Amino acid sequence: MDDREAYDRLDSTASSPSELFEHFERWSADGRTYRLLTDARHGVERGTVVVERTGAIVRGYPSVSRILTLETGVHAVFDVDETIVVEEKLDGFNVRIADVGADGPLAFTRSGYVCPYTTDRVRTLLDLPEYFTAHPETMLCVELIGPETPYTTHDYDGVDSNAVRVFGIRDRVSGVPLPVTERRTRCEAYGFPQPRLFGRGPPDVAAEVVRDAVGALDAAGREGVVLKAANGAPRAKYTTESQHHAELAYALSLPFEYGRDFLFSRIVRDAFQAAECDDDAALEERAQDLGESILLPMVETIRRVENGETVGERHTVRGDADSVDALLAHLRDQSLTVEVVDDGCEDGERVVEFVKVAESTTDQIRHYLDGGTRDE
Amino acid sequence: MDDREAYDRLDSTASSPSELFEHFERWSADGRTYRLLTDARHGVERGTVVVERTGAIVRGYPSVSRILTLETGVHAVFDVDETIVVEEKLDGFNVRIADVGADGPLAFTRSGYVCPYTTDRVRTLLDLPEYFTAHPETMLCVELIGPETPYTTHDYDGVDSNAVRVFGIRDRVSGVPLPVTERRTRCEAYGFPQPRLFGRGPPDVAAEVVRDAVGALDAAGREGVVLKAANGAPRAKYTTESQHHAELAYALSLPFEYGRDFLFSRIVRDAFQAAECDDDAALEERAQDLGESILLPMVETIRRVENGETVGERHTVRGDADSVDALLAHLRDQSLTVEVVDDGCEDGERVVEFVKVAESTTDQIRHYLDGGTRDE
Repeated sequence: MDDREAYDRLDSTASSPSELFEHFERWSADGRTYRLLTDARHGVERGTVVVERTGAIVRGYPSVSRILTLETGVHAVFDVDETIVVEEKLDGFNVRIADVGADGPLAFTRSGYVCPYTTDRVRTLLDLPEYFTAHPETMLCVELIGPETPYTTHDYDGVDSNAVRVFGIRDRVSGVPLPVTERRTRCEAYGFPQPRLFGRGPPDVAAEVVRDAVGALDAAGREGVVLKAANGAPRAKYTTESQHHAELAYALSLPFEYGRDFLFSRIVRDAFQAAECDDDAALEERAQDLGESILLPMVETIRRVENGETVGERHTVRGDADSVDALLAHLRDQSLTVEVVDDGCEDGERVVEFVKVAESTTDQIRHYLDGGTRDE
Repeated sequence: MDDREAYDRLDSTASSPSELFEHFERWSADGRTYRLLTDARHGVERGTVVVERTGAIVRGYPSVSRILTLETGVHAVFDVDETIVVEEKLDGFNVRIADVGADGPLAFTRSGYVCPYTTDRVRTLLDLPEYFTAHPETMLCVELIGPETPYTTHDYDGVDSNAVRVFGIRDRVSGVPLPVTERRTRCEAYGFPQPRLFGRGPPDVAAEVVRDAVGALDAAGREGVVLKAANGAPRAKYTTESQHHAELAYALSLPFEYGRDFLFSRIVRDAFQAAECDDDAALEERAQDLGESILLPMVETIRRVENGETVGERHTVRGDADSVDALLAHLRDQSLTVEVVDDGCEDGERVVEFVKVAESTTDQIRHYLDGGTRDE
């Protein structure tokens, strides 16, 4: 397919194919070449993919704005007579599953790469052939969750290894979502697990639903909620204190990889939530917990580097031997240094524990421990 | 004087006058025009000033590196047989006082502007005519400290309004410092107050001196120390936990002005100090205190904006009426919005309390309180 046809189908605000496609990068795997959009441009979402030979399009998943003040935010984002659907937001790995004419459906990461491991997982965990035979023009928007994924490690009750939740179904080319009710019905029909639905209603009701949901999710150490229009479009997200602190703890355990980027935004979220929700005692407790989330993981990492340990993100993955190998190759293709810590077999599956080595954190901590100075 | 002569006297690494002077900006006050260097370039320090008509030069004060690990840092920065002088680092406003042929000595800020208020203060607090008659070729490097300054508000025991400490004497053109011993003797001769001297010795001894000094300074809520070579060159600084937390509290009270820039660096300092010095209990206490320094001031500011109050940096200044007026004009020249809160008279001096309005913090907090979304 030529650029003109892909350009027409993407319905962008760019005035010519070249104006749009100059922002795409080429990427190859398994004998296929993809073009992917590394940043949102001309009304087209980041992570949008055009398969080179066939011209198949997999539209990126839109970024969702965040409200910081719950009471006013719900009313500012939605009209007074709109119905809002409140669903759980999960802390996992967001992929789009699409059948683009390869040997089976593929899992595309948020930025538009095919992840071989997630592809293997979703093929195992969902009955995809039956689904895509009936709905080839759609993509499933899925969160891969659980302790055994190569990207996230958030624990969820009842998920020992990994699992998926289908939180959206969209037209693969236009990105138009299925209304929430239809999506939930269709997923139930195919036996696809979904995120928890907390309730639906106009803004007044929804704000109350969110408040209760976030309280319960916070107590359970879960991430938060997404507020969707009835037509399926996610319009806002709102997260828990425990999630803010967990993300800070994670980022500060690898301070020179993630610290600077994570810090301010999580503190902003936490402060607005505290200003809206906390009495003096709750505020004091939140502040102390915030400080522990920031300082303790960083001090632990400094001491581990001092002891000569490898620091980085530790993950465990499980699957058939080939998909695990493909994953490790895929990660190394992305310029990550991957150290395999353990490589074994359990119940006929290969189980590999590995560390994505945090080079910048290791090098900089070593520098300062050796007496190196810092210029600011 | 022409550019060639100023270029020769600045002894830079630039290969021509234009290569150097293209980085200077012109600035006028009181009928004089200055050129000042806004960033360190070609071996010339930021804040270096060339007075336009006379060609007088006031060399910038060098930036001083920071060590994060005390034990190794002192040994990495100094040779094993060097003598290190440990002096207190004060949390104030760093100016250079120089006599460049105006109606009297002027106080140049770190970035090279003449501050009319600080000029008035140093003329009142120090006997400058006597000094500059004897040493016209030098500049005094001075910290203006105390609760009544237009820039900082750190309280020091015994300083009710403001005071100065002379921490360096340098050749005005070359920037070469007087050795510490000579500077201390000369300052004593003129009755100039100086920062506290904690001790001197080779690296082993100095590390111990710093450790004790920082412990005492931390308990007193003071900033930290500067480690100087005997020739007077400052080579490293090291600061207290209480200073890190106080700076965070200050920055997070105006989060959208300073939060992002202040956060990471102060946390890094605190974490390395904790990793080196803290047992489990001290670490826990530091972490909780850190969290309180970050969250509580920000929540307080959010609630103040919600109540319609003006937020910003609140300062009190005291002096003759003209110098206070000149200060307010000077601050407004720097694009600051200054709201005078109180304007009165005490003991024949004018005392003005004002707020540098934090526009960005006010606007952004208002936006989020009104339900505005945040895209990250």
